[in-house]
Amino acid sequence: MRCTAVQLCFRSDSLSVFARVGASKQSLLGCFLSLDKNSESGEGDRAPVEQDLLLAAAYVSDAQYNRNVPFETSPQAIRFYYFYNHWTMQVATYFFICVDLSLALFEEPALFPLPFLATSIAEVLCLTAFFGRLVHFAKVTPQVVFWKDTKNICIVVTIVLTLIDLIIYGSLEAVNIHSVRWSRVLRPVFLINFPESRQIRRAFRSIRNTLPDILYVFLLFMFSVLMFSLMALKLFGDRGLKTVEGSPYFTNILEIAFELYVLVTTANSPDVMMPAYDFNWWYSLYFITYVIINTYIFMSVFLAVVYNNYRKHLKNEIRKLVYLKRHKMIEAFNILKVKVGTEFVVEEAQWKRLAKVVAPDISSSHLELLLRISDEGQKGHVDKMNFLRLADLLNIRVIAINIKRHPLETWVPRVYQSSASLWVQKMVRHRAFVWVYDIIILINAIFIALDERNPFIAYAEWLFLSLYIIEILLKLYTYEPRAYFGRRQFWNWFDVLIIIAALVATVANTTIQSARKYNSQQILDIVLILRILRLLRVIVSIQRFRVIVTTLINIGPTMLTFGGLVLVVYYVFAIIGMEVFRGKVRFFNPNFTTPDAPVCGNPALKDSAFARSRYCKNNFNDLASAFVVLMELTVVNQWHVIAGGFALVTHQAAKLYFIGFHVVVVILIVNIFIAFILEAFFVAYSLEKSEVETAIEKKIQELGVGIQEEDMQDGKLIDNVDAKDGGFSGDDGDNKRKALKGLYFRIASKKYRTVDALLQQMFESEIAPEDEGPSLDEILNSSPSDVYPKTPSLENSA
Amino acid sequence: MRCTAVQLCFRSDSLSVFARVGASKQSLLGCFLSLDKNSESGEGDRAPVEQDLLLAAAYVSDAQYNRNVPFETSPQAIRFYYFYNHWTMQVATYFFICVDLSLALFEEPALFPLPFLATSIAEVLCLTAFFGRLVHFAKVTPQVVFWKDTKNICIVVTIVLTLIDLIIYGSLEAVNIHSVRWSRVLRPVFLINFPESRQIRRAFRSIRNTLPDILYVFLLFMFSVLMFSLMALKLFGDRGLKTVEGSPYFTNILEIAFELYVLVTTANSPDVMMPAYDFNWWYSLYFITYVIINTYIFMSVFLAVVYNNYRKHLKNEIRKLVYLKRHKMIEAFNILKVKVGTEFVVEEAQWKRLAKVVAPDISSSHLELLLRISDEGQKGHVDKMNFLRLADLLNIRVIAINIKRHPLETWVPRVYQSSASLWVQKMVRHRAFVWVYDIIILINAIFIALDERNPFIAYAEWLFLSLYIIEILLKLYTYEPRAYFGRRQFWNWFDVLIIIAALVATVANTTIQSARKYNSQQILDIVLILRILRLLRVIVSIQRFRVIVTTLINIGPTMLTFGGLVLVVYYVFAIIGMEVFRGKVRFFNPNFTTPDAPVCGNPALKDSAFARSRYCKNNFNDLASAFVVLMELTVVNQWHVIAGGFALVTHQAAKLYFIGFHVVVVILIVNIFIAFILEAFFVAYSLEKSEVETAIEKKIQELGVGIQEEDMQDGKLIDNVDAKDGGFSGDDGDNKRKALKGLYFRIASKKYRTVDALLQQMFESEIAPEDEGPSLDEILNSSPSDVYPKTPSLENSA
Repeated sequence: MRCTAVQLCFRSDSLSVFARVGASKQSLLGCFLSLDKNSESGEGDRAPVEQDLLLAAAYVSDAQYNRNVPFETSPQAIRFYYFYNHWTMQVATYFFICVDLSLALFEEPALFPLPFLATSIAEVLCLTAFFGRLVHFAKVTPQVVFWKDTKNICIVVTIVLTLIDLIIYGSLEAVNIHSVRWSRVLRPVFLINFPESRQIRRAFRSIRNTLPDILYVFLLFMFSVLMFSLMALKLFGDRGLKTVEGSPYFTNILEIAFELYVLVTTANSPDVMMPAYDFNWWYSLYFITYVIINTYIFMSVFLAVVYNNYRKHLKNEIRKLVYLKRHKMIEAFNILKVKVGTEFVVEEAQWKRLAKVVAPDISSSHLELLLRISDEGQKGHVDKMNFLRLADLLNIRVIAINIKRHPLETWVPRVYQSSASLWVQKMVRHRAFVWVYDIIILINAIFIALDERNPFIAYAEWLFLSLYIIEILLKLYTYEPRAYFGRRQFWNWFDVLIIIAALVATVANTTIQSARKYNSQQILDIVLILRILRLLRVIVSIQRFRVIVTTLINIGPTMLTFGGLVLVVYYVFAIIGMEVFRGKVRFFNPNFTTPDAPVCGNPALKDSAFARSRYCKNNFNDLASAFVVLMELTVVNQWHVIAGGFALVTHQAAKLYFIGFHVVVVILIVNIFIAFILEAFFVAYSLEKSEVETAIEKKIQELGVGIQEEDMQDGKLIDNVDAKDGGFSGDDGDNKRKALKGLYFRIASKKYRTVDALLQQMFESEIAPEDEGPSLDEILNSSPSDVYPKTPSLENSA
Repeated sequence: MRCTAVQLCFRSDSLSVFARVGASKQSLLGCFLSLDKNSESGEGDRAPVEQDLLLAAAYVSDAQYNRNVPFETSPQAIRFYYFYNHWTMQVATYFFICVDLSLALFEEPALFPLPFLATSIAEVLCLTAFFGRLVHFAKVTPQVVFWKDTKNICIVVTIVLTLIDLIIYGSLEAVNIHSVRWSRVLRPVFLINFPESRQIRRAFRSIRNTLPDILYVFLLFMFSVLMFSLMALKLFGDRGLKTVEGSPYFTNILEIAFELYVLVTTANSPDVMMPAYDFNWWYSLYFITYVIINTYIFMSVFLAVVYNNYRKHLKNEIRKLVYLKRHKMIEAFNILKVKVGTEFVVEEAQWKRLAKVVAPDISSSHLELLLRISDEGQKGHVDKMNFLRLADLLNIRVIAINIKRHPLETWVPRVYQSSASLWVQKMVRHRAFVWVYDIIILINAIFIALDERNPFIAYAEWLFLSLYIIEILLKLYTYEPRAYFGRRQFWNWFDVLIIIAALVATVANTTIQSARKYNSQQILDIVLILRILRLLRVIVSIQRFRVIVTTLINIGPTMLTFGGLVLVVYYVFAIIGMEVFRGKVRFFNPNFTTPDAPVCGNPALKDSAFARSRYCKNNFNDLASAFVVLMELTVVNQWHVIAGGFALVTHQAAKLYFIGFHVVVVILIVNIFIAFILEAFFVAYSLEKSEVETAIEKKIQELGVGIQEEDMQDGKLIDNVDAKDGGFSGDDGDNKRKALKGLYFRIASKKYRTVDALLQQMFESEIAPEDEGPSLDEILNSSPSDVYPKTPSLENSA
């Protein structure tokens, strides 16, 4: 009887786990709880049990990290879910994805060859891990939801296909028939489709949504290219002109179309025009018209279309996220709420336990601060509106600053407070100290540029190194070390790490050199690079530069998304390229002279531009080389030479591979990248304090535990924010700070906020606190384009 | 006594001609009027005299065309002002500017050499014309305003400097000393600084405003390039590597910096990497890092900064324009207003006279329509709010469609209405008619691609030509010719012109060929191009293509602004380049073999990439060649080869000229161009009916004189707008139209609206009708960046 009830609960839950809010959930939970604790289910002011707390914490945690996994609410499933979200599991998943992807380095054509058996065992291992992860996920999520999700189906299908391919390839290999490992192309599927790669999937969705709009522009663009090709054939075909290489000029319509497509990318820019231009001045007008229409206008239109779609969909997706977050927080509230007077609230003790579960390593002082903000009247409970902010509150980094005495002051107060010591501290804090070191850096730069074989200069290097070490020691003497190495003191960390690494490497190099009379190339290179990276410190001294660099660092994390996106596309193209072009072009060491070396080991390349430019190392003979070639193709210049070379050693149709790559990577992905940078900069320009953060700051000030800050003026916002963080290298603000001792809070600088977070906050401030948004079904099932049309201030603005 | 009063009026007016609004103007006007008519000055319901009307009309006209010239309000000055704005004067000014600029074609180094005397006389003539125009302007505008305007000072200074230069150069020439005509660089000043070139000035202002922001990014970018150069020197300098040409690889810091700057533009992309990459695989990482940081990130940041500034300033400038327009309309209203009941209004007769003065060739039916819209209650007068809309109303093109019978129907009704004739008409209107001709076009394309020396194909050409002519005749037979050749029927005009031109050219060519047995090259080229342009018609049949093309045509007019901007920059660089590089590189006809030909007549170019690529014709020996070289530099590819070549024949410092050009044109102007296209597309995407237009449309419908339109759905807005205009080539809407006869109105399609107009309308809808905006002084003196900060919906949106 009991068992049946539980099963019923499960089934009804799995069907509608995400579609129900509030009361219905309550009774459902009661159902589960009756299983464990035998307490009576229902609404009321019953103290929630451990399970409830875990469930609520799971919701809050999901809201905090923007996870959108519909999970079962049974106690077991919740524990599974906690385990599923544990960082070790995620790291393990990414580890196996990396192993799986890097297998291409060891398979034929390999950079480091391994027998087929080894790679295939590794692959099966990875597949098992993926399968295990998927099974784990299936335990957590309701069955119906699980099988409706294309992500999961994709993974299952890919695993099955890979196994089939492995078996076929292995058995054919056993009888010495070589076939193609086609399933390798599918490997990036794992990277894309695990729930953790939300960002990459979003970028792909963005591309997919852009496709219809791009397609028509692309067709029109191709039409224009073909029209111009036809014109070129008629205008130049019969003139008997010759290219610089002596081949006939513009006589074949397909070749013309290819040449003109290359001209759009500007890669053959004046060369393709020169024969006609030499013949008659007026023909340059043809090419100028072509370039204006196709290179400038059409390429800008591509960017405009991509950017417009990107912006539209980004906003819709972020809006979706915000609504989902709100829903999760309401779920959590409904689980924990008790009735006090006329309104439902969450009791203080309950709230604290919840926060402790969500963020186990939160400091008690931080927790106290958050509680004071959430429970403004100190009524002993948190109301709904304040409860909904919990996820955001937890996301804001509040730094508890322990302004302590300098350790030396505690240990040797007499020495540290002596007049000489005080003078040193004053000197280090003085602005001139920074200037002196800027000048030292510049002199160092000049010394680096000079010839280092001069022994005087080699000794100077030691001098500079010791000067930098002295600087760091002086700063550590003056500033409190734990504050100097604060979590967000990026430039201090940078300084110290660079110097220590340079010290270690220089010492190591000198040791090797004196011991074996030989310079280790690798170590020497590292020393050189570190030595030059030190010069970067000069940026820190110039306010304006620091602002730009800060913005770029801000964008950094999201730029990694594009790293993932590019990796996926590169990987697929590299695998295809390796299958098609491997071994066709070979690179010979320049010292090793064979007659084949100048033609890259392939007679078909004789007299080709490819061989003449010595591009032999641009080949697809292993994954690393393939990636370098693809990078060169992304940069676009000379891509027609590379394409032409590979077309010569295989077939003219091979050019389609290169054109395809250009369309996918340069027209789509690079444009999305540019769109992203533009958007990120505009968001950064319109940077404003978010509501939640000001609430915290106000509270910090009210409680008298804040660090006095300079008055923030609107225009100087970014500057000030930045000045605060760089404060330890100058003397600003420090004088004020010196006087205070004890525990203080400070909100971590806005400069570490991501674009996503900024956009989310923009939307949140638009949604009224009472607004619960559309129902979850609506949110989840709506296509990105048709959802939420009514956003005048964000959509209509030009 | 009277005279003194007038003079006083003048002086006080000239001091504050733009600063006063409303009542004070009234009394001032009264002062003028007392001079002419002896009528009493003051408020009241006095009927305004001719001068008032002219003055008001001048204000309205300025508001209509967005002219912002502060003019004197004396009767004489107003008449002068009308004359100043007359189109003949403007055309004359542009004519002299063209002549002045094109003088560079005839001066040494000349494309068409003329003696110095001839060009100098022409130049003096132009200068006289400019001076005359300026004097005219000085008569119109108050003295104080005139001398405060940097535009006018610029022109005066340039005229003086040019005269000085002419005299010095002429006298030195007389004693056979050759000097430099340095004042030629200043010629574009005339193009920029005449009040008519508002758009170009705006673009320049936009650049100037962007400079501070760009500068810091540029410095950081250069710092990054130098850091990488230093690293490259250390990493590769001592390896003894060789480039493909056999020269040492990365040994000189300046050369490295140049090569790496070129790498940012991607022009030497894989080549610069190959020696290091051949040496060791790992060194490719250095170049990949470099490209990601400097090419992708920094170049995107440049675009972001330029775009952000462009957008910000564009909006502020447009807002300024809107306020100025509002002010002018209020001035005009205050001049003409009479008191009726409690409110001031403009009487109907007065209003009509005003409209007639502003738009002399307005049709009386159109005027009647506008009146009905402005005077909704038919009260015999127009209130202030409706009066303010007059400029906008006049700007909207309302097409009065005279749906008449087909002329043939009038002349030979029996024949035209016969069943055969009706069948023909039905056939032409059928959708299949369009399809058949699309197929014919495609077949034609294939025939063009085939070899034309085949006589069969040559005859086919005549067949196609006659088919097209038949199509046009059939259409003219079916549709009313005047409607077919409507002012906005772009594609119909295109069709007919292309076909007629092709017919004429083909006939001319055939005549020449049969008469002299020789093909005229020029005519043949034109015939070929026309033949291929005909294929463009296939675009018209595909809805989606038509939309994109329409948007591009929309942007067209404003793109001409960039033409002007580019012309100015090109001209300055070309003049400098011609002075520095003329005659250093010469082109020899390929048939004419001299030993100097392969090195472009300069031994310094021996074995250079410049000579090897046969770039001899890329020289600065005349204006046309210089422009082509600059175009090639704009396209960027191989620019380092051109720069290297000219550095070889002069000095390495010559590379600075090319780097400067790259920074100005590619980093600034091309980015502004892209920003403009992006903005234009976003505005077009957010296209909405403006308030004024809907008012007119509503009235047209109310009055029952509208053409029935398809119901416009929001999503299909652009499609429908377009379908209406392309309607004559299909059969949609025509059936409805057929039934109606008589005079009907239709608002000219929105597709001919410019981006500027759209932006203005966006802002106007934001300003409340009562809002008179800030005072004129505020508007005129405010810097673009600090004005109107409170626009949440436009500035803050991401």
